[in-house]
Amino acid sequence: MDIGFIGCGLIGGSLIKSLDKNAAHNIHFFDTDPDTVKKVENSTHARFMESMDALKNLDVVFVCLHPVKTIEFIKSNVSNFKKGAIVSDVCGVKQSIADAVEDLLIQNGINYVGIHPMAGREFSGFDYAVDNLFENAYFIIAEPKNGADISPLKQIAKDCRFKSIVVTTAKKHDEIIAFTSQLAHVVSNAYIKSPTALLQCGFSAGSFLDMTRVAYLNENMWTELFMMNKESLCTEIQTIINHLEEYKTAMENGDKEKLKSLLKDGRELKEKTNAER
Amino acid sequence: MDIGFIGCGLIGGSLIKSLDKNAAHNIHFFDTDPDTVKKVENSTHARFMESMDALKNLDVVFVCLHPVKTIEFIKSNVSNFKKGAIVSDVCGVKQSIADAVEDLLIQNGINYVGIHPMAGREFSGFDYAVDNLFENAYFIIAEPKNGADISPLKQIAKDCRFKSIVVTTAKKHDEIIAFTSQLAHVVSNAYIKSPTALLQCGFSAGSFLDMTRVAYLNENMWTELFMMNKESLCTEIQTIINHLEEYKTAMENGDKEKLKSLLKDGRELKEKTNAER
Repeated sequence: MDIGFIGCGLIGGSLIKSLDKNAAHNIHFFDTDPDTVKKVENSTHARFMESMDALKNLDVVFVCLHPVKTIEFIKSNVSNFKKGAIVSDVCGVKQSIADAVEDLLIQNGINYVGIHPMAGREFSGFDYAVDNLFENAYFIIAEPKNGADISPLKQIAKDCRFKSIVVTTAKKHDEIIAFTSQLAHVVSNAYIKSPTALLQCGFSAGSFLDMTRVAYLNENMWTELFMMNKESLCTEIQTIINHLEEYKTAMENGDKEKLKSLLKDGRELKEKTNAER
Repeated sequence: MDIGFIGCGLIGGSLIKSLDKNAAHNIHFFDTDPDTVKKVENSTHARFMESMDALKNLDVVFVCLHPVKTIEFIKSNVSNFKKGAIVSDVCGVKQSIADAVEDLLIQNGINYVGIHPMAGREFSGFDYAVDNLFENAYFIIAEPKNGADISPLKQIAKDCRFKSIVVTTAKKHDEIIAFTSQLAHVVSNAYIKSPTALLQCGFSAGSFLDMTRVAYLNENMWTELFMMNKESLCTEIQTIINHLEEYKTAMENGDKEKLKSLLKDGRELKEKTNAER
């Protein structure tokens, strides 16, 4: 296949490196940063796209930009994509992207299929891209409205050595991701804000580090993602607040048995989710 | 030194294994579980204490039980400890233990010095004890009231290959630990309680796993620890609730700039705490 990547950050870059290592596709890429372009050319076989005319030769195009720029890029290049091609994106929300571009693409004879590679790091940019980022990760495909053939994307997921492919709806993706990913970033970012955080040196261990790892985030990207999924995310934030208040109330009431029972409930749910993985 | 361990769970067992590997002390131990006794005897040079009479020969005794049992054990063995010995414990709270046993021990010519080895795993018991658990961990010593010599404990910390020794007060320890460790366990345990947790299979990545790792906890031990430090812990819970509400309010108001600024604040604090480690 002729596959294109628009944007070579952590995800775009890691997809390019994985495909370059494991498969024999023709890989094309575009990035606005000259340093990144050099790095991609020096470390992979991918070819730089001199202009957006090159889009017309591509079977699959992955737009690997932040959400707002993803939408802008797709809208402004509708006339450049090859008829029948798959245009995809890798954003952490799927419904808002689909709402913005899917009908427009279909009207122009192009298929839109959003994906979400469920891997990441707390750092961004091609410098952190690696060819094995996805080896233990899920590859989520949001079902296209027009029933387009998603098998090319499945093949690419296999080539990138994803652990498993999950096909779902954009709506379901967004609801669950609000909990598994977005809430984790909010809670981690909130956790570090206690005044006690400035005294933690010498008093912390693994649980603190785990809890605050993703507090280090790109606020520009995550603001876009959160705003595009705010209803589900606000529901999840309220849910954890309600639960946190239960432990606090039990302690304030001196109710050991209630506190123990609350902790037991959480431990058992954790066992259950572990068993399901 | 003649060093004793009462209780050979994850922490007691790991201390024994570390000392057994790296130093030449005479190690003695007691555990009520016959299987554990066999395992300790089979995997280390530590000698089983047939009765509590053996306490009178020990220079340092580490009581490695849950908090309530730690207090019970020390109180009921005051007459068995050697005069001038150090009696220590490894509980995750220090003030409540000191309040319960320190004066009594001093009145009987025995020194009390509580410690907190800042390492752990989400599993408990001797089966999970390892000889390198502490290699990247802090060894916290709560200053004794009577100015007792803490150098034997510092030597033991070095023998166990702790990364660093921190000497502080019980009060300061408890205030900071409420944030670095106890809050992490509460938040993790609360996180998993969203109804969405049962749908997460196929939609989760590292941030979810990190966030919920310590949701798997021993509710008996942690209930005791939380109840003994509830004032500081409730303050920390309220602090994170207040911060979580800020993100939620910003989203509900459609205020992108406020949301971005809240996320930026957290990211910068995370950078600052990373730099301080």
